[in-house]
Amino acid sequence: MDLKKELNTIAKSAQESSRQLAVLSAQEKNSCLKAMAEALLAEKDFIKKANQRDIGLAVKNRLPAALVDRLTLDDKRIVLMAESLLELIKLPDPVGGLIKEWSRPNGLKIRKVRVPIGVIVIIYESRPNVTAECIGLCFKSGNCAILRGGSEAFNSNMAIFQVLKRVLLKHGIPQGALNLVSTQDRRAIDLLLKLNQYIDLVIPRGGEGLIKKVVSTSRIPVIKHYKGICHVYVDELADLNMAGEVCFNAKVQRPGVCNAMESMLVHRDIAAKFLPGMLNRFIEAGVEIRACPVTKVIVKDLKVKKAKEADYRTEYLDLILSVKVVDSLKDAINHINNYGTHHSDSIVTGDIGRAEEFLRCVDSACVYHNASTRFTDGFEFGLGAEIGISTDKLHARGPMALEELTSYKYEIYGHGQVRQ
Amino acid sequence: MDLKKELNTIAKSAQESSRQLAVLSAQEKNSCLKAMAEALLAEKDFIKKANQRDIGLAVKNRLPAALVDRLTLDDKRIVLMAESLLELIKLPDPVGGLIKEWSRPNGLKIRKVRVPIGVIVIIYESRPNVTAECIGLCFKSGNCAILRGGSEAFNSNMAIFQVLKRVLLKHGIPQGALNLVSTQDRRAIDLLLKLNQYIDLVIPRGGEGLIKKVVSTSRIPVIKHYKGICHVYVDELADLNMAGEVCFNAKVQRPGVCNAMESMLVHRDIAAKFLPGMLNRFIEAGVEIRACPVTKVIVKDLKVKKAKEADYRTEYLDLILSVKVVDSLKDAINHINNYGTHHSDSIVTGDIGRAEEFLRCVDSACVYHNASTRFTDGFEFGLGAEIGISTDKLHARGPMALEELTSYKYEIYGHGQVRQ
Repeated sequence: MDLKKELNTIAKSAQESSRQLAVLSAQEKNSCLKAMAEALLAEKDFIKKANQRDIGLAVKNRLPAALVDRLTLDDKRIVLMAESLLELIKLPDPVGGLIKEWSRPNGLKIRKVRVPIGVIVIIYESRPNVTAECIGLCFKSGNCAILRGGSEAFNSNMAIFQVLKRVLLKHGIPQGALNLVSTQDRRAIDLLLKLNQYIDLVIPRGGEGLIKKVVSTSRIPVIKHYKGICHVYVDELADLNMAGEVCFNAKVQRPGVCNAMESMLVHRDIAAKFLPGMLNRFIEAGVEIRACPVTKVIVKDLKVKKAKEADYRTEYLDLILSVKVVDSLKDAINHINNYGTHHSDSIVTGDIGRAEEFLRCVDSACVYHNASTRFTDGFEFGLGAEIGISTDKLHARGPMALEELTSYKYEIYGHGQVRQ
Repeated sequence: MDLKKELNTIAKSAQESSRQLAVLSAQEKNSCLKAMAEALLAEKDFIKKANQRDIGLAVKNRLPAALVDRLTLDDKRIVLMAESLLELIKLPDPVGGLIKEWSRPNGLKIRKVRVPIGVIVIIYESRPNVTAECIGLCFKSGNCAILRGGSEAFNSNMAIFQVLKRVLLKHGIPQGALNLVSTQDRRAIDLLLKLNQYIDLVIPRGGEGLIKKVVSTSRIPVIKHYKGICHVYVDELADLNMAGEVCFNAKVQRPGVCNAMESMLVHRDIAAKFLPGMLNRFIEAGVEIRACPVTKVIVKDLKVKKAKEADYRTEYLDLILSVKVVDSLKDAINHINNYGTHHSDSIVTGDIGRAEEFLRCVDSACVYHNASTRFTDGFEFGLGAEIGISTDKLHARGPMALEELTSYKYEIYGHGQVRQ
């Protein structure tokens, strides 16, 4: 009961504060961001001390070394956090931006302008630098944030939050503008997700379990950063050297991220020419291959496993790749639409007509012609920031940056018009 | 169990069909729309006969006369339905529309283009002509529709659906493109709202009970057409003649709709001058006034009721108006943000600075200066259509027409780029 009351109070105060935050000038927000970056550097030792407590617990609980590394905040990472806040200063303030304006025959002038969404809950796992990033992005876009980080980073998140919140309060920003759920009680998420009278949006960032739980519980709109089962399709009319470079990059350059290739589709007419060299290169780079029967016949001298149906539905996030030979462009499109996660998919082909068909028919946030899927990223797109990559179709799709953290309103100017 | 299976089959087939529907040309869609309009006229008698069954049941169940009237389909209303489909032909196809394009330093060319949302469930009550409107709007925007109408209009809805679906099938449009839930079983809504693997969006249109039920049950994104508690604020610097015309129009011209004024706020410094004449005019027009204590003192010669707290939170949809004297522009803004439903609110003032403050600070979909709230409407905005008025902030806010029924994707063109 107390937890319920506490979360209700937080959400209500966030909504109240959202009206003040919505009308802050770009200058006011930017001078806060500068002070926030400075405070992170000035309070480096405080943050690192808190981080040490998390690392101690992680080691005690025998978390994998890779996870402990993700968790660790050293001087360099704190400097990077501060820099990410300074970068936001350079980006244009999305709030107040004019989307469209027009006049009606009766003289009404209609302006469609960007406004903050209001109150945003972000539920995330692991890396504590996400705390500073989310705070910066929500603040710059005029939104009140309620953060709920992962339990492994609890002390680090809390320290970063305290440092940044102190700066905001010193600058006269209202109390409810920034919130971090200060309990590790798991019921907190369920309770928050019911407060649709105060909260406008939930962004879950984390594993499949977290996402599914949020979607099935929430009464608040959710924008999901869901998994990426990304494909590259090598067409019969592809430049095979280019195809090799694109596929290798998409799989190997950073296999643990959502925009890496998990499944490679190859047109049957070039399969015999393309696959042996390509798969050999992958295997030499340490990639495990899980292939369809046709592929296995073609590369019978190489060590490849047999792909199961489930492989085509798996986001490995690792040096593993499923490979399938397809009969046609149409088959490739159907496979991607049925097995993919509508994230990022690429065609390599020399034929622009076939490329356009692929780009039109593949139902994914980002569809590429002759380029690696790894470019699906707010920074690579030139948005200057990223709070996540939406695999949803409502409100925001693909990389989400400042504009995607806004809604809009219609401002209508008249001179006494009434409706007939 | 059978119902569950049936709805699952419908939703799955809708998703499959959505990929074909998404790539239809404007010309193909427009020629279907023309044939659909013609079919409604040709099958007039079939539709009227079905409608007679609904009317018979309504009379038998002693539904109010106003409701029976809303339910009735005569020749004129069927012609209007057909015309609304023909109107859609004139509107630009939103699908494929370029939102933005830019190039990156590495030569990648990024195009942000509109695509259909996919599969949309629309749950609505009462008027059967909504069936044709929703079918037309979803089809033109390339979306598959699953409709669930009110039980009173069941036979009429089914007849309209059958006539239009026949046309689509004859034109080679896939089976799943258009669906109407053919049972009145109330569990159907609950079951549909869980099928988030197939359905992209739910639009509920109806009373508060329906909306609340949908929001609390749905695992699918919902865009609500919620109630409108709209305000006009008469500022101390208002032209009082203009204020009188705007307020009268906002309340009286059509009181039963969501963009009608439910609450009038008046600055204390002009209250004594403005209120007696204004309220007298309202009372003569049959409007019941529920006023704050200050108003009651000012108009003590008039018959006005005392407003309760709950009055300021009530959408009357009738010739009833709550009236409140406020101390300042700021008070007006706070009242609207706290008691309103973020739909449509207007300020009447001669001071542009005060108008801009109101428009910036009132957190509503449509904010007006010197105009009636009654203009919140897709047609009045010049959008050429309307599937509803969103009181949400995610994806679509305010009047929703064809563009609001689309999502977008990024098409990225390269020449072999890989990520460093």
